[in-house]
This record gives sequence, C-alpha cells and structure tokens, in this order.
Amino acid sequence: MRVLGVDPGLTRCGVGVVEGAPGKALRLVCVDVIRTSPDDDIAARLLGIETGLEALLDEMRPDAVAVERVFAQHNVRTVMGTAQAAGIAMVCAARRGIPVAMHTPSEAKAAITGNGRADKAQVTAMVTRLLRLDAPPKPADAADALALAICHVWRGGAQARINAARLAARTTGRTTG
Amino acid sequence: MRVLGVDPGLTRCGVGVVEGAPGKALRLVCVDVIRTSPDDDIAARLLGIETGLEALLDEMRPDAVAVERVFAQHNVRTVMGTAQAAGIAMVCAARRGIPVAMHTPSEAKAAITGNGRADKAQVTAMVTRLLRLDAPPKPADAADALALAICHVWRGGAQARINAARLAARTTGRTTG
Repeated sequence: MRVLGVDPGLTRCGVGVVEGAPGKALRLVCVDVIRTSPDDDIAARLLGIETGLEALLDEMRPDAVAVERVFAQHNVRTVMGTAQAAGIAMVCAARRGIPVAMHTPSEAKAAITGNGRADKAQVTAMVTRLLRLDAPPKPADAADALALAICHVWRGGAQARINAARLAARTTGRTTG
Repeated sequence: MRVLGVDPGLTRCGVGVVEGAPGKALRLVCVDVIRTSPDDDIAARLLGIETGLEALLDEMRPDAVAVERVFAQHNVRTVMGTAQAAGIAMVCAARRGIPVAMHTPSEAKAAITGNGRADKAQVTAMVTRLLRLDAPPKPADAADALALAICHVWRGGAQARINAARLAARTTGRTTG
C-alpha cells in the first residue's frame, strides 16, 4: 500500500509518500514541501498547491491519501488557508477516485510514538527509525506528512476501503446542481 | 462585465451570475444552488461542488468570480467546510485565469442596501429590485450569491484588474515544489 501524507499549509504544504502494510517494513518513497509565496493572492496560492499535488499524484500514484485534520480552534490567523489547502488535497484525490482519510495530529503522533502529545523531535526520530533512514528526512517540516502517511498505513486500511466503496457508490448515484 | 457570485457552503453553495457595469442597469443571467449530501464524505462533497462550479463556468464564462469571505470566528461547526468550498471556487477560477475577489457579507449588504447589517428580507428585496425581477429569485438562499455579484460589479472592478495582473505575473514567474 502506497500512501501520500499531506500536512496542509499555504506557505509550506508538507507531502510524503510511504509504502508499507501493517506488520511489514515501511519504505520512504519521497518527501517534499510545496511552497507558495505570501505575496501572492489566495487564489493563486491554492492553484500553486493544486499544481504541486497534481504533479505528485501523477508521478507517485498513491493508493490512498491521508490529510491532516484541521481544527477551527487552532491558529485562527492561518486556519482558513490551512483548511483550504486540505480541501484542495481532498479534491485532487477524489477526482482520481483515490480514497481520502483524515487523521488528527494526535492520532499520527500516537500511532508512531505511542504518545499523542509527542514533541516534534520525538516524531522526527520515530519517522527516521521506522523508515530506516540514515538521517532525519529533509525538509525537516515534512516529517509530519510522513508521520501521517505511516499512521495511515497502520490504522487507515479499513477506513480507506469503506471510503472508497462509499465514494464509488456516490459517484454513480449522485446528482449535483 | 459578467460576474459569478459564490456564497460558499457544503450542503448548499449559492451561485448567481449577473451582468452589468457601474452606472448601468444590471441583468440576472442565472441563479442556482449546488447541493451536496451530508451523508457523503467531505472529499466527495468538495468534488461535487467542484463539478457543479466547473459546469457553471463552462456555460457562463464570467469575467470575474466574487466569493464571500469566510471568517474563522463564525459558526465553528461548519466553518471548515465553508472555507473549503470557498477555496474550491477560488481554484476553479484561478485555473482558468479568471480574477477572483472576496467580499465580506457586510460589504455586499452595504453595497446593495446601504446598510452592512441589513437583514435577509432587505437584501432579497434589493436584489429583486436591482435586477428588475417580477419576483424574488429562487432558490431563496441564492439571493446572497446575487448580492455578492452585484457588489462586485459596483465595487470590484479595480480590485479585479489588480488581481488579474498579479495572477498573470505570478503564473509566469512562480515555481512550485
């Protein structure tokens, strides 16, 4: 199972692709950050994120996309852009029929460190160990995207199959407009 | 100038197209609501909104898109979905090079009624009068999308030109990934 993890953000959108299955070794496929400039207007920035994600999906062809769940309570100043970047990631996946799952930061931390309140250093250390890397992944702030992808490999399989079945049913049965 | 106004929402996304220019009569081109089911998952719903907006943009070919600005403070329960629907509308427009503007509900109300705190009945009455309709537009909750489009015809021209120039500059000069 190949999973794209997306840590949504307007200025820096972390993306990481991991291969694995529950009980088997994990493999890092790629990790990167899609950047957009705060000088651009919001529409251009969201388009930049879409373009980056589309290129990644074309190249990596993941079986599932795991997006960090955004909460309205946190970081009110940036939360709208973060939510919109997450929405773009969901639509990019849905358009291709790729199942989308959302996991909270706590779920991802708990899945890979055993502690939902683990700090950044601990998450990075476990991502490095679980993917058997010689050094922490770079860019450093993409580690959360990898943690999310690993979390999904381990806990998201069943959920992804449910969502895929639901999406398939809705795509044929749904009316819009 | 032909403007598509979008009142973003996941369950009901109001859309209205108006033609006009400052100092000239306004004309209603079309008004509708794009609906998605609360039973679908969020990715499928956002895709449904994208599909509906794409069909509308293909058919109506507006010169500008005006999206209601969403605030994090209001309606925490639904604000994330609303922000994501707004983000989809922005990307659909940006992908086609159509300038996007955002106006707050108060700006739209003030533009068409003279009062930023006007109630729904007053907004609907003025939309009906300004578009010289025999009856209030239906669906009733699409009146806000029309108000937004009218607001943009009147106040958004200069802003739209600035955004278009900026978008054109960024599209050629920007790097992603």
